Amino acid sequence: MTDAPLRVGLAGLGTVGVGTLRLLRENADLIAARAGRPVVPVAVAARDRARDRGVPLDGLAWFDDAVALARDPGVDVLVEVIGGADGIARAAVEAALAARKPVVTANKAMLALHGAELAAAAEDARAPLAFEAAVAGGIPAIKALREGLAANRITRVAGILNGTCNYILTTMRDSGRAFADVLAEAQAHGYAEADPAFDIDGVDAAHKLAILAALAFGRPVDFASVHVEGIRHVSALDIAFARELALVIRLVGVAERHDGGISARVHPVMVPAASPLAHVDGVFNAVLVEGDHVGRVMLEGRGAGAGPTASAVVADLIDIARGRHTPPFGMAAQHLSAEPAVPIARRVGPAYLRLMVVDRPGVIADVSAVLRDHVVSLESMIQRGRAPGEIVPVVLTTHPCEEAALAAALARIAKLGSVVEPPTMIRIETL
Amino acid sequence: MTDAPLRVGLAGLGTVGVGTLRLLRENADLIAARAGRPVVPVAVAARDRARDRGVPLDGLAWFDDAVALARDPGVDVLVEVIGGADGIARAAVEAALAARKPVVTANKAMLALHGAELAAAAEDARAPLAFEAAVAGGIPAIKALREGLAANRITRVAGILNGTCNYILTTMRDSGRAFADVLAEAQAHGYAEADPAFDIDGVDAAHKLAILAALAFGRPVDFASVHVEGIRHVSALDIAFARELALVIRLVGVAERHDGGISARVHPVMVPAASPLAHVDGVFNAVLVEGDHVGRVMLEGRGAGAGPTASAVVADLIDIARGRHTPPFGMAAQHLSAEPAVPIARRVGPAYLRLMVVDRPGVIADVSAVLRDHVVSLESMIQRGRAPGEIVPVVLTTHPCEEAALAAALARIAKLGSVVEPPTMIRIETL
Repeated sequence: MTDAPLRVGLAGLGTVGVGTLRLLRENADLIAARAGRPVVPVAVAARDRARDRGVPLDGLAWFDDAVALARDPGVDVLVEVIGGADGIARAAVEAALAARKPVVTANKAMLALHGAELAAAAEDARAPLAFEAAVAGGIPAIKALREGLAANRITRVAGILNGTCNYILTTMRDSGRAFADVLAEAQAHGYAEADPAFDIDGVDAAHKLAILAALAFGRPVDFASVHVEGIRHVSALDIAFARELALVIRLVGVAERHDGGISARVHPVMVPAASPLAHVDGVFNAVLVEGDHVGRVMLEGRGAGAGPTASAVVADLIDIARGRHTPPFGMAAQHLSAEPAVPIARRVGPAYLRLMVVDRPGVIADVSAVLRDHVVSLESMIQRGRAPGEIVPVVLTTHPCEEAALAAALARIAKLGSVVEPPTMIRIETL
Repeated sequence: MTDAPLRVGLAGLGTVGVGTLRLLRENADLIAARAGRPVVPVAVAARDRARDRGVPLDGLAWFDDAVALARDPGVDVLVEVIGGADGIARAAVEAALAARKPVVTANKAMLALHGAELAAAAEDARAPLAFEAAVAGGIPAIKALREGLAANRITRVAGILNGTCNYILTTMRDSGRAFADVLAEAQAHGYAEADPAFDIDGVDAAHKLAILAALAFGRPVDFASVHVEGIRHVSALDIAFARELALVIRLVGVAERHDGGISARVHPVMVPAASPLAHVDGVFNAVLVEGDHVGRVMLEGRGAGAGPTASAVVADLIDIARGRHTPPFGMAAQHLSAEPAVPIARRVGPAYLRLMVVDRPGVIADVSAVLRDHVVSLESMIQRGRAPGEIVPVVLTTHPCEEAALAAALARIAKLGSVVEPPTMIRIETL
């Protein structure tokens, strides 16, 4: 193995890019010892050369074009931290792989949408394509699934994969405040973007889940089959009722092996207060893996931010410097099997239902009759206080039932004369 | 890279050896895909050939002598799961390394006591020495520290490293029963050995901590400098008082960077009920790592048992089959630095004290005066009920204080006329 320095070209000088540059410099000696040779940033690409980013860029070659950086013969490895599924990020990654150069990327959207093609390109080029930073920030979840737990047939991978949503849900629970209010505060603190849709509608978590599912189940990334719901409809009322039921609301991604395929879904869930996921608070992320021999393993840590993400980027660089090479999704493309996607309609599990009803005799009887018709069995019912003629919440929890049956029942319940709002349904999971 | 099968020689057919054989067979196809080539058990060594171990041994070469197995030209890699710091286990590992063969071992005692010499031998032989299974069973903690978090300067590594102790402490808390009673039950269930000293006196956890500290801080394994206390003196009374103080008792190993060195210690601690370590129950293990860029990462899972340990052994075999090579302690021996060991006397932190005193006026005043003389400041005091002339517990918690000062104060308190038992001291940590 060579002990020549590994020359890093950094495409993107946002938070993660600057954090990577800082880390490579601050811990240069330690990183060289762990990598077996120096890992040295030599070039950067970004749009605005004049902008002050708080780190000196002296001694680094400047590229306006990330593709030119990727192709530069002075660059041994491309670090892509521009972001965006397509455009310049993807072009730079493809250019590096075409030049048979290793790539490290934090780009979950690109991997979720184009991971299979990029992995094939990396395999053809015999160049590593590493993406520890794309999922769960500083938590070494990719390495754990791809290497540490590689001996296991994975039955389930689940996680809290979006720190913004977890911060909002945690704060709603702790403060009793409403979603919109807490979102605005998260935006003020920088925990949520000005346009928060990507996070709060579950898309970001779904990108990460698609990547984890590919690694866990040895199949090409399949973002299109991930069922995605966000947290906009979670109300302070639901959080209060959850507490009464000893449940905690989290936005969770779950991918599971079923007879005949793999399901993958991102949506709010209620987990028991004793669940390990219930203790993952604020901006923390967690990844839970269940394997046939290892049992359940959980990893928890910071899922975003300059330091944690840079930690993951540089871990990948150290692997590359050491010549530790693994196919992007843990096995050669020929071994990946495109198992069928199981739709969420086939989920079987309990659920929480909240109905806003006019408080008058017979409402519960009507609702119960519809559920019975669809073979959905009730586990508990809460209707606090009496307010004849007024609108009150009725909360029901079901025994495990078929998602499709429950959806059909809810469609009918929504049409009952006493039910004045579309019913709220949040799945209960014993993760 | 070759795609010839990796031929495994398995030394030891106890729980872990049999579990490894089972796993290699059950998941052979998956393992071959992840390893890039078949990983095939070809030979075993154990003492009693006639014993029924519940797995067929047909087709495996049998060796009575593990050293002969290690040297056999038909064996590419030695898996040592015999155990014991010296004797046949160490001889077999040395024989394999001398023959330039990779070694996978689950032997924490051997690594804790001879890890530095064995790592040097592996480096000389340019052969991997892998030991994921030696610490925290199925949790990929070694890989996380050595690779996944390799970019970070680690400030602290801590963990619940012994499932037997954690099971006993969890059961004591849940049931209110006494230590001896719960230990006997754990022995009946197979969670504790007939001779439990190794576990309950903290030695096993200390072996694992010594290995983690070497990886975290890049220094040769130094078991001799680990401070070790077990859980025999933890009483049901202490657990009840801990609950009252919103604290939970765990046997924890902590290794920390200080100005001027590294401290490593295993002892019972009280952690806040909200600490992630407080939620690690029963036979589960957890490893908590704090790095300068990644922040805090926690890994949790099963720390023992055939399946989890075999999962770790086979992960190492897959690394070896793929040619993923890392120096045993994450960096070449020349980069390991023997930073001084900081003794526990230099710990600064709060503590819980329980005194059994004769209930009469002036006792608290006497105790307080001694603590004041040693600059130990009180944070809280509990003396429930009154029973003049009888023996009652008095519980004190201190503000952060010097271990040495506290020890001196306790020595004097033990001699007070009203104090009828040696004081109990349990350190409080905000892990």
